[in-house]
Amino acid sequence: MLTNTLASGLEIVEKELQSVVNSDVDILTDAGLHLIKSGGKRLRPQLSILAYLAAGGENVAEVAPIGAAIEMVHTATLVHDDINDHSMMRRGKLTVHAKWGRTFALLAGDYLFTKVYELMAPFGAEYNVIMSDACTKLVEGETLQAQAAKAGEMDRETYKTIISRKTASLFEAGARMGAMLAGAEEKLIEALSSYAYNLGLTFQIVDDILDIIGDPETMGKPVGTDLAQNRGVTAAQNGGLDEVATAVAEADDPIAQMMAKLRESGAMDIARMQAQEMAERAREALKSVAESEAKDEMTNLIELVLERQS
Amino acid sequence: MLTNTLASGLEIVEKELQSVVNSDVDILTDAGLHLIKSGGKRLRPQLSILAYLAAGGENVAEVAPIGAAIEMVHTATLVHDDINDHSMMRRGKLTVHAKWGRTFALLAGDYLFTKVYELMAPFGAEYNVIMSDACTKLVEGETLQAQAAKAGEMDRETYKTIISRKTASLFEAGARMGAMLAGAEEKLIEALSSYAYNLGLTFQIVDDILDIIGDPETMGKPVGTDLAQNRGVTAAQNGGLDEVATAVAEADDPIAQMMAKLRESGAMDIARMQAQEMAERAREALKSVAESEAKDEMTNLIELVLERQS
Repeated sequence: MLTNTLASGLEIVEKELQSVVNSDVDILTDAGLHLIKSGGKRLRPQLSILAYLAAGGENVAEVAPIGAAIEMVHTATLVHDDINDHSMMRRGKLTVHAKWGRTFALLAGDYLFTKVYELMAPFGAEYNVIMSDACTKLVEGETLQAQAAKAGEMDRETYKTIISRKTASLFEAGARMGAMLAGAEEKLIEALSSYAYNLGLTFQIVDDILDIIGDPETMGKPVGTDLAQNRGVTAAQNGGLDEVATAVAEADDPIAQMMAKLRESGAMDIARMQAQEMAERAREALKSVAESEAKDEMTNLIELVLERQS
Repeated sequence: MLTNTLASGLEIVEKELQSVVNSDVDILTDAGLHLIKSGGKRLRPQLSILAYLAAGGENVAEVAPIGAAIEMVHTATLVHDDINDHSMMRRGKLTVHAKWGRTFALLAGDYLFTKVYELMAPFGAEYNVIMSDACTKLVEGETLQAQAAKAGEMDRETYKTIISRKTASLFEAGARMGAMLAGAEEKLIEALSSYAYNLGLTFQIVDDILDIIGDPETMGKPVGTDLAQNRGVTAAQNGGLDEVATAVAEADDPIAQMMAKLRESGAMDIARMQAQEMAERAREALKSVAESEAKDEMTNLIELVLERQS
């Protein structure tokens, strides 16, 4: 039952995502669809829909545009991120800027941002304030990350601020709006928002671990690029991790050396413990939420996020 | 009386622009304020305020956030445009990307877009639909322009589509929302929107003429860069036009030669006639609008836009 409902909600999200990017300026449609159709996990829209259902919402078509808007923010960000990181591969395909060049990628990212706004416009002021706030936080998080990368410094506090703003805030906003749309009481809204926020932190920590130890083939993109921040580990594109580490270390690549050191240092174990801790907070947040299939699925998601390999 | 009202409206717009970009991520505040404080013409917010007043609005503080949002769209666009055009100077100052680098300029532009959204969020769905539509058109116009530049082709029809979307639509949206906010009837809203749309077309044609024949010192930026589209006429930065044309033509620069040819060809006269025609349509649109000081000022603006030298 829930599986069907969730699936039908996600189907509407897909349709919204694909139809809203339609333009008579073909390159914008093509560049937009390129990433949308490359099969992301759609974790963010799932959260909006599940929060809506957990709060008693009964018409998933109602919440779908919000799920689509949240996914669109994420998509727009990826297009601009890939420009700044000089990334060539994303989800097993060329990035937008690798395919269409930097100028059009910048414009395509801007275009997708305007589509967020278009999807959200029909909702009331309350929703638009939440969404604009999440978008601002996201850009702030990205900026702090770029600054830390440039300075070559990153303490734990800064890292926490970065992942909170660039990832968790958007997860939270999606769940919050889903719960609000279902007419949930304040206490329930806060519980579902807190769940999503902590799931977002978990997700990002795992994501950063996978960037160091992940299998590039499973990931659909080279590993180490987040770490490399524009300094490239292109050799990683076509190999398993060990070969890469060896090959690139032999080539005296500081990134590969850093990756190898990180794997040996135990830093990954610490990061994994932090992810576990954030996951536990997400579980805690769900305790006050009434039992439902949607709640069960939200609990499952925590494990999926913790255990994902790509 | 009007002068005071308009000035006080614009003062609120300035305050809104400056306060909304405030962030604990200093670089975003600094990069945002850099362009905001560099003294643009504020033509777009003036139009929102004047349309509001011409439609009987009595509290300029009400319309100021919309004027600020419209100016913010323009500002965000300039930051991203300057990246794509490799422009180093804007309003007599370094561009954001020249000062902070491309990565931070891209993020600063995204940040300013989120601030548009923040300024608009409190307004109703009707307003947000108009604004998101104008933003989409703007990006489409920029994209068509980049495509035409890349292809090295531009017919009159394409040019008209480009300036309609990238400039006139935003002028129109600002006036439309101003009139709506004052509670104007449909007919008056359309008249003021049509005025602003045609003023936008006039403005852009004159802008493009000035890019060919303008004085770089008065303009605060090099001339010919829009024409050059990334191929640079850097010599123009520090000289009067004739010297530039000669100097760069001698260096066998195709842009300088193109500029010289355009000035000799009579194309500039044709463009000026088109600007006059659009200005006439703007005047026509105002005919059905009841007399008021605001209307007089709107009529003045047409002449100012036609005669401006920078």
